[in-house]
Amino acid sequence: MFDFIYYNPTRIEFGKGKEEKIGNYISEYGVSKVLIVYGSDRIKQNGLFDKVAQSLTGNGISYEALGGVHSNPLLSKVYEGIAMAKSKGVDAVLAVGGGSVLDSSKAIAAGAVYEGDVWDFFTYKAFPNQALKIFDIMTLAATGSEMNNFAVVTNDKTKEKFSLAGTATFPTVSVINPGLQASVNKEYLAYSASDIFAHSLDMYLTATYLPGFIAGHVENILKTVMRTTEILLTDATHYEARAEFAWAATQALNFTTFCGVAGNRFDTHFIEHTLSAEYNIAHGAGLSIIMPAWMKWQKNNLPERFEQFARNIFHVEGADTGIEALKAWYVKIGAPVTLKEGNISEKDIPMLVEKLLPVAAMRGAESIYTREMITTVLENAK
Amino acid sequence: MFDFIYYNPTRIEFGKGKEEKIGNYISEYGVSKVLIVYGSDRIKQNGLFDKVAQSLTGNGISYEALGGVHSNPLLSKVYEGIAMAKSKGVDAVLAVGGGSVLDSSKAIAAGAVYEGDVWDFFTYKAFPNQALKIFDIMTLAATGSEMNNFAVVTNDKTKEKFSLAGTATFPTVSVINPGLQASVNKEYLAYSASDIFAHSLDMYLTATYLPGFIAGHVENILKTVMRTTEILLTDATHYEARAEFAWAATQALNFTTFCGVAGNRFDTHFIEHTLSAEYNIAHGAGLSIIMPAWMKWQKNNLPERFEQFARNIFHVEGADTGIEALKAWYVKIGAPVTLKEGNISEKDIPMLVEKLLPVAAMRGAESIYTREMITTVLENAK
Repeated sequence: MFDFIYYNPTRIEFGKGKEEKIGNYISEYGVSKVLIVYGSDRIKQNGLFDKVAQSLTGNGISYEALGGVHSNPLLSKVYEGIAMAKSKGVDAVLAVGGGSVLDSSKAIAAGAVYEGDVWDFFTYKAFPNQALKIFDIMTLAATGSEMNNFAVVTNDKTKEKFSLAGTATFPTVSVINPGLQASVNKEYLAYSASDIFAHSLDMYLTATYLPGFIAGHVENILKTVMRTTEILLTDATHYEARAEFAWAATQALNFTTFCGVAGNRFDTHFIEHTLSAEYNIAHGAGLSIIMPAWMKWQKNNLPERFEQFARNIFHVEGADTGIEALKAWYVKIGAPVTLKEGNISEKDIPMLVEKLLPVAAMRGAESIYTREMITTVLENAK
Repeated sequence: MFDFIYYNPTRIEFGKGKEEKIGNYISEYGVSKVLIVYGSDRIKQNGLFDKVAQSLTGNGISYEALGGVHSNPLLSKVYEGIAMAKSKGVDAVLAVGGGSVLDSSKAIAAGAVYEGDVWDFFTYKAFPNQALKIFDIMTLAATGSEMNNFAVVTNDKTKEKFSLAGTATFPTVSVINPGLQASVNKEYLAYSASDIFAHSLDMYLTATYLPGFIAGHVENILKTVMRTTEILLTDATHYEARAEFAWAATQALNFTTFCGVAGNRFDTHFIEHTLSAEYNIAHGAGLSIIMPAWMKWQKNNLPERFEQFARNIFHVEGADTGIEALKAWYVKIGAPVTLKEGNISEKDIPMLVEKLLPVAAMRGAESIYTREMITTVLENAK
């Protein structure tokens, strides 16, 4: 194993009805006022907002609220949250929603204690090593945001979709009640499965060194996601499947899959972020389109790893057979696998290439994300 | 999955030469004086002590040192450490050694800020929710102590081997340099493998509810331990195998294997603790004697789980075949599998039963650890 640091201080409160205790958890950390960040008004209609508010006030915690966060969350909304957090004097942010809400909340928490522009954290001009405390109640399992320090936000003006990560942007307490995630529709369940696959496979299929223990860990995540997705597509209220799906999602991006690994990259995420910033398609949908197309490009770089993937996940032999099996599984669960299915015209490919090249340059990754590489992957996705 | 809390704030610094940075790590936490706790003088002879001392003083941290911790660490040594910590005014404890040294250090760290008798924590009269900060450099992979809050200590007077666990007894930073563990002899490597197996199997073979994801996680730990032990028995200096063995050991008892699990117990640990307290045999040796004997008793309580174990770990069918395969593997790696091989007379069985019954009562577990159960397991180990 290569040298590594593992550190993940987030406390997970997993289980039924735990959202009703959120005020108790937050009060343990001496917080007196929070900014609740959420998405649509659905949480007001289904009673979740009221439960949360009641738990907060019952524990002597006052709150402000900011709704309207969308998928592919926008920087403008983050600015709005920072202004509120500063003017109202909150000392923590409470995200109630999915990955987008939590991403926005992390950015707000970091921006609220920073004198400069929060976008500096996304362009690596500064690092968020201080932030308001972050708490969350996850209503969608996919992004792993509940147990990592990443936040992905889209700059509305430049359409850049970038990420931040700092020592202060780990959630302090994350509530995962799988029961709250039962209302996710089949389409989004498929996108979520695709997102978890991409977190896992971006690493698994690029790492130049992958310890056997970590390979086994990732394969266990993938097999759990496949098993539970198939159950949930026929029975959305299956609590056990929902719970294992949620926990696998958390594991896929809580750094346990990176321990001792070397040479890994985030290729499909890199390409997809520009796709969803341009077309506002769901992140998971963009990923299921890009993944098989990217795999066809990548397979010759690590042929044995692709064979291992085919064998251990789909019980088939050969890299190509493995890629086709994954593509077929995406089709089976209802995730798109072509640009066309994502309503993206193949005529846009040259424009997307021009958008991606400067991002590659900013990340210092021009030697990997070349014009030829990006073009090939997008052409493969036609 | 059953409701659970996962919280593990320990920072792991894993890799080559990291012990030379221990002073840097500790200084990040504002510590100015530590008590170094260690076992034999071997670390003085091989230069490790000097490296550690140099890193500490180079970072402006002064130290006191307490050596002489043995396997099955004694309460009397813990008392000695507490007295030193108090009189010398240290603000952290640094364990340099294996599980016994770290166990002693955790007890010292908790006892140093407690007015009463530290043994209170082991008899559940009090809980160690405050402690000096704990740091460690692990020279033996087995116990998982580097990423949990457990400490097991033997009371020299009463020969009771009990454990404590509190919110304050997680190590702050644990250094794992697999290279430092290469000097472990074959005998202790086998005992370590047995210890990791017991941490995993005590849970896996007792849980009345075991989520598929967690079963896969445990199976991955077991398969990693088997694969790497076999490599290390022929090549003790194999760094990659040593590294994966070490990380699997950490995972086996850092609470990741317990998430969402219900009804699990620690049967072999319960029985073994009295065995090693009475005869001062290595913990791992006691466990490899008890495990197959206990499995024969337990198999009919969870037949399907035993079949799953046989199939997924040894690729054989049937509970009995699986138990025999594990026993054969213990023999193969040189771990004892009978009381006789542990130099324990079968005539002592009635005495051991009398010792164990009151411990069961203290733990409120008389209904499981009955006279009949304990006798059967010990008789199976003849």
